[in-house]
Amino acid sequence: MSSAVTDATILERLKQLQINHAEVISHAPVKGSAEWKAELSISSPTLSETLLTKTLLFKPKTAKSATPTPVMVFAQDTTETPSAAIGKLLELKELRLASEDLIKEVLPSAATKDDVSALALPKPVPQTLHLILDAALAQSEEQHAVHLTASSTTVLLKGSDIKSYLDSLLENGEGVKVVDFAELKASAPAPAEKKPAAPKEKKPAAAAASTGPEDDKYEMAIRFKKEEDFSGWYTDVLLKGQMIDYYDISGCYILRPWSYSIWQTIQNWFDDEIKKLGVNDCYFPMFVSRARLEKEKDHIEGFAPEVAWVTKAGKSDLEEHIAIRPTSETVMYPAYAKWINSHRDLPLKLNQWNSVVRWEFKNPQPFLRTREFLWQEGHTAFLEKAEADKEVLDILKLYQAVYQDLLAVPVIPGKKSENEKFAGGDYTTTVEGFIPTSGRGIQGATSHHLGQNFSKMFDITVQSPVKSDDRLYVYQNSWGLSTRTIGVMVMTHGDDQGLVLPPRVALQQVVVVPVGLSKVEGKNQAIYDACLNLERELVAAGIRAKADLREGYTPGWKFNDWELQGVPLRLELGPKDIAANSTLSVRRYDNFKTPLPLADIANRVRTYLTEIQASMLARATETFDSRLKTVTNWDDIVPTLDAKNVLVLPWCEDSQCEDDIKERSKGQATHGVAEDSKAPSAGAKSLCIPFDQKRFGPFPDGEEQKCVQCGKKAKSWTLFGRSY
Amino acid sequence: MSSAVTDATILERLKQLQINHAEVISHAPVKGSAEWKAELSISSPTLSETLLTKTLLFKPKTAKSATPTPVMVFAQDTTETPSAAIGKLLELKELRLASEDLIKEVLPSAATKDDVSALALPKPVPQTLHLILDAALAQSEEQHAVHLTASSTTVLLKGSDIKSYLDSLLENGEGVKVVDFAELKASAPAPAEKKPAAPKEKKPAAAAASTGPEDDKYEMAIRFKKEEDFSGWYTDVLLKGQMIDYYDISGCYILRPWSYSIWQTIQNWFDDEIKKLGVNDCYFPMFVSRARLEKEKDHIEGFAPEVAWVTKAGKSDLEEHIAIRPTSETVMYPAYAKWINSHRDLPLKLNQWNSVVRWEFKNPQPFLRTREFLWQEGHTAFLEKAEADKEVLDILKLYQAVYQDLLAVPVIPGKKSENEKFAGGDYTTTVEGFIPTSGRGIQGATSHHLGQNFSKMFDITVQSPVKSDDRLYVYQNSWGLSTRTIGVMVMTHGDDQGLVLPPRVALQQVVVVPVGLSKVEGKNQAIYDACLNLERELVAAGIRAKADLREGYTPGWKFNDWELQGVPLRLELGPKDIAANSTLSVRRYDNFKTPLPLADIANRVRTYLTEIQASMLARATETFDSRLKTVTNWDDIVPTLDAKNVLVLPWCEDSQCEDDIKERSKGQATHGVAEDSKAPSAGAKSLCIPFDQKRFGPFPDGEEQKCVQCGKKAKSWTLFGRSY
Repeated sequence: MSSAVTDATILERLKQLQINHAEVISHAPVKGSAEWKAELSISSPTLSETLLTKTLLFKPKTAKSATPTPVMVFAQDTTETPSAAIGKLLELKELRLASEDLIKEVLPSAATKDDVSALALPKPVPQTLHLILDAALAQSEEQHAVHLTASSTTVLLKGSDIKSYLDSLLENGEGVKVVDFAELKASAPAPAEKKPAAPKEKKPAAAAASTGPEDDKYEMAIRFKKEEDFSGWYTDVLLKGQMIDYYDISGCYILRPWSYSIWQTIQNWFDDEIKKLGVNDCYFPMFVSRARLEKEKDHIEGFAPEVAWVTKAGKSDLEEHIAIRPTSETVMYPAYAKWINSHRDLPLKLNQWNSVVRWEFKNPQPFLRTREFLWQEGHTAFLEKAEADKEVLDILKLYQAVYQDLLAVPVIPGKKSENEKFAGGDYTTTVEGFIPTSGRGIQGATSHHLGQNFSKMFDITVQSPVKSDDRLYVYQNSWGLSTRTIGVMVMTHGDDQGLVLPPRVALQQVVVVPVGLSKVEGKNQAIYDACLNLERELVAAGIRAKADLREGYTPGWKFNDWELQGVPLRLELGPKDIAANSTLSVRRYDNFKTPLPLADIANRVRTYLTEIQASMLARATETFDSRLKTVTNWDDIVPTLDAKNVLVLPWCEDSQCEDDIKERSKGQATHGVAEDSKAPSAGAKSLCIPFDQKRFGPFPDGEEQKCVQCGKKAKSWTLFGRSY
Repeated sequence: MSSAVTDATILERLKQLQINHAEVISHAPVKGSAEWKAELSISSPTLSETLLTKTLLFKPKTAKSATPTPVMVFAQDTTETPSAAIGKLLELKELRLASEDLIKEVLPSAATKDDVSALALPKPVPQTLHLILDAALAQSEEQHAVHLTASSTTVLLKGSDIKSYLDSLLENGEGVKVVDFAELKASAPAPAEKKPAAPKEKKPAAAAASTGPEDDKYEMAIRFKKEEDFSGWYTDVLLKGQMIDYYDISGCYILRPWSYSIWQTIQNWFDDEIKKLGVNDCYFPMFVSRARLEKEKDHIEGFAPEVAWVTKAGKSDLEEHIAIRPTSETVMYPAYAKWINSHRDLPLKLNQWNSVVRWEFKNPQPFLRTREFLWQEGHTAFLEKAEADKEVLDILKLYQAVYQDLLAVPVIPGKKSENEKFAGGDYTTTVEGFIPTSGRGIQGATSHHLGQNFSKMFDITVQSPVKSDDRLYVYQNSWGLSTRTIGVMVMTHGDDQGLVLPPRVALQQVVVVPVGLSKVEGKNQAIYDACLNLERELVAAGIRAKADLREGYTPGWKFNDWELQGVPLRLELGPKDIAANSTLSVRRYDNFKTPLPLADIANRVRTYLTEIQASMLARATETFDSRLKTVTNWDDIVPTLDAKNVLVLPWCEDSQCEDDIKERSKGQATHGVAEDSKAPSAGAKSLCIPFDQKRFGPFPDGEEQKCVQCGKKAKSWTLFGRSY
């Protein structure tokens, strides 16, 4: 892999070619031409009329073992560049837009998929890359807006200069391949047969414009197979399933109602439960003074590199820089010291629903690693350690229920190792999930016992109720659950057709779709009425149902649309169904079809949804269980990990031994023969020491069992795995 | 008023007196000695043992017309400085801790009440100020920590040097008055009879230490009369009623469960209602790029000086500064442009529950003016203007219901004048409240119709469903309700005993207090059991009730405590009540007492709470109505305002005329004879043009009615007043 080209490199190349250009324009990163135009017009109103360009990177289908031969197309923004026609021209199969991984390989300078610019190609351009230039662009003497290495910089170049530039990067002696797309279009093959059925009726004009057949294909289908390109699949499913949208600040995403409603369901359920435990909600400011933040040195050490700082208000520089909370221990505990004076002030149990900010510089991933995320953080204080210990587990049970009962995601409750526990706490309990597709463990939520560490730091004391001279430090817990839950749920249940939502958390549980429609206008009213009646009956029974009576779309198109969005149950209603007083039900998670009598339909559907919820959990649990592999021989560890399993090891629970396991398993993975470039080759770390030790049976060697790594006495079956 | 003393002035004075001192220590602002100590120890561990000082400012009771004669006491932190004894010594009555207003008058440099430092007194010290120095401090040769002008700076000075410093500020020729507080204490008068009854039983040690009689008085009673010092009263009621607590960043407050639960009640109710209107919740990032923020110039102009900017993450400077949202129009509307393509994507109705940041530099006030506040912001888009117009009013009705039905606060719905509408919108509707104590109007919540202004700016268009070539700009609304609601509620209902909460929003609706207890141990179990049974019966019926069985506190102490917190209904249970199968009920808002039979008590209480809710609204409405004064003669305007009324004027609705009214009414107020220094002398602005014009009757001059200010034709009865 060549090193990244910088903006300076590009400008130097232009200079050497004696290509004149105006000053480089810096602006906010842009996605798409509308935003680009808007940004240019901020810089100068006249620029809003500039011709724009686009660089597309495609990946043709190739044998797994073959070197990939990506195709880059550099064109005027308005030129139609149909991938099928390009494929035909180059004799390549099934061109798809490249994944972020491939983009990075071709253009190491690209930080995101919006930063694809042909100007940033290395010199010489690798021979495996097909580079194509739009003739309309190559032949133009007009100025075109082109990005340098990132979508936040623009330079204006004449079309002919762009051609010279690209020519200079190639060593093929022929220069860049110029393609007349207008001409090419005429010879394009028919659209692939896989695309969702386009509306058969004539669509109203507006719909035709925004969801024409070509658009449909691009808009609707998930572009990646879950098993082939998991991270591409994940983002695509979230975007097209309308869970999230991109935002113009890296690492931040818009949570659309389809995902936010899931969070609200979790909130409502969990909030009710903790209120039963005597926890009250409150709200502390999002800002933290530097002094407060830095008070607990060990604690803050982990967060410090990721803290966002406010240093200005309006045009004034703030005298004291102010942090945005990465978590609220140091925000809340000074107040606890003030409020807790007598043992009667205990227990103090507070919770907050808020957002926290951790400005990570690693690759962001929606729900799993974002710079701002939503969570709840509970902070409680007790007189007795035993009360605190009990609450740690009470809360963990609720977290387990959020995953299993609401999201149909199996988790294993247990205790974190010393290496993996919350810094500054006494011990951490966790519910650990598993993503079968990547074979990685994922931490679901944690409930910490902080002991007296923070109360000593913040001087949170009460007088002893028995011996008045003694000041007692309180025992504290903290516990948190975040929107990461939603990401784990999507990864667990989603498939190549899109999202699959468990009924309990789906904003819409049932969609009613009219089928068998007549093309004769006015003939379908009876079917529509039947659909609306069905919707009403279900809604009246508290089921979140909706009839999809949108005109201008075929039933097939609607099926695809709702499958993409993961609605748990589809009910089809056509003339034959109505005649039979029945509806054909199709459940999303396994596509199973069965007719349901319309008599007493609300109760039938309610029962069915409950069954679906249970089956989804059962299926996911079966998968998780089948990937939990007891390993007692070191040599089996890496192959078992490579087969996407989680390990259950007899382990000594020693901190140094955990480091050694991580290091040894990593080293072996890197030297493995069958290494796939996309497989995670990271070492295995401990996920948790499960509370339920019995499920893994007695140690094979009983009392004499040795730790699989160091040979010391084993203390417990412990989960180890690669993880998020 | 003299100009503010700066830190530099103080250091210069010390230099001139040849007082040596170590370097000035800067730290986070501190409240109280624990925080101060903590901050000093961050600076250097050895400093944690430093002797601290305190400066207290008292206001004695004086005739309203008399010049105030404040008393400042500068003492070692550990010295007891009883106000009664000081009052006796100086022959002044009823010393109370000074309000923020008085602090500012004496020490213009003090930004908050924590910045009171004798070092910052002007030179010469005004003769009206009594300055007292603690003898223990004056005679000490040890280093003492003293604040400069703010609680965020510390200088170490010898006690004797402090005396020299204060002597130099006085022109009385005698130097500062030194008082031996240990000696003074011996001659102190008995505690005032008004203080809440101290526990009569011997309290357990812990309670005695934290809530001894002296502490009780200080901790519990509201230090200001609502009618005498409204702003002092307001803050004190919020702090002691446990609604908020201070925070170490100016303009930010902690929302404790007692207030946050009210916000949650509002949230739950309002969220259910808007969901019925088809609105979905979502979450957009709190961060905004500069380009986005500045896109709509008119809109952002109002917010720009208050925007908080993140410029650093960890130790890295961010290339692009990032704003924290002051509101989300420019955050959300680019996404709307993306999501809205067809008329089928309309209406789009989204709402967010979040916090926004406006870094105001004016005096902060909890709930009314804070740098971060919680709110909901609804943003909707429609194809037809008529749909949007309808929604504006649907939402306004919900806002009215939040105030009237939940918070028992009357409001008047109407339309804002051109001057007062939301910049960038077409028109603004509002519910306007009224604070009788200050005689000021207060904007309750607003619902805006944005017209096509934003859709044109952000290019949010759909193809016309009738004429396919046309792109139609959508019509938009935005509407918001914030935690300001809670502030208005407290100001409306609270009294000199503390908070008064309406039953529908009170976290605790009923407190059950055991009375008539025996001093013989073990004799009271029957009473406690009866209290717990009563609690259980009420809770089972869905009433938020709690029995207060805390030992070591007298019933009287508990009564005060719950009155302070505003619990709507108190039920007393003693041996006589139990014998009569009855409980004495005391309602908080008017202290009305009546026995309630215990038979069917849950239903009785439920009905009674409903009555209380209604009566509280009725009482507040009566007050508001009585202060709405129709004025048709200009000369009556200022006197009517000065009498703490809101004006109902025949008005021409002209923008320039509104400016003139504001200017003319201000001018006259300033020159009024009976001007009270604390009365708001600001000009009157329009609050709203009430939708219900009929309630004010026809214009006296009918069709010929002239505007009260400019004499042009009057268009409507319009509310004018001084306002928040």
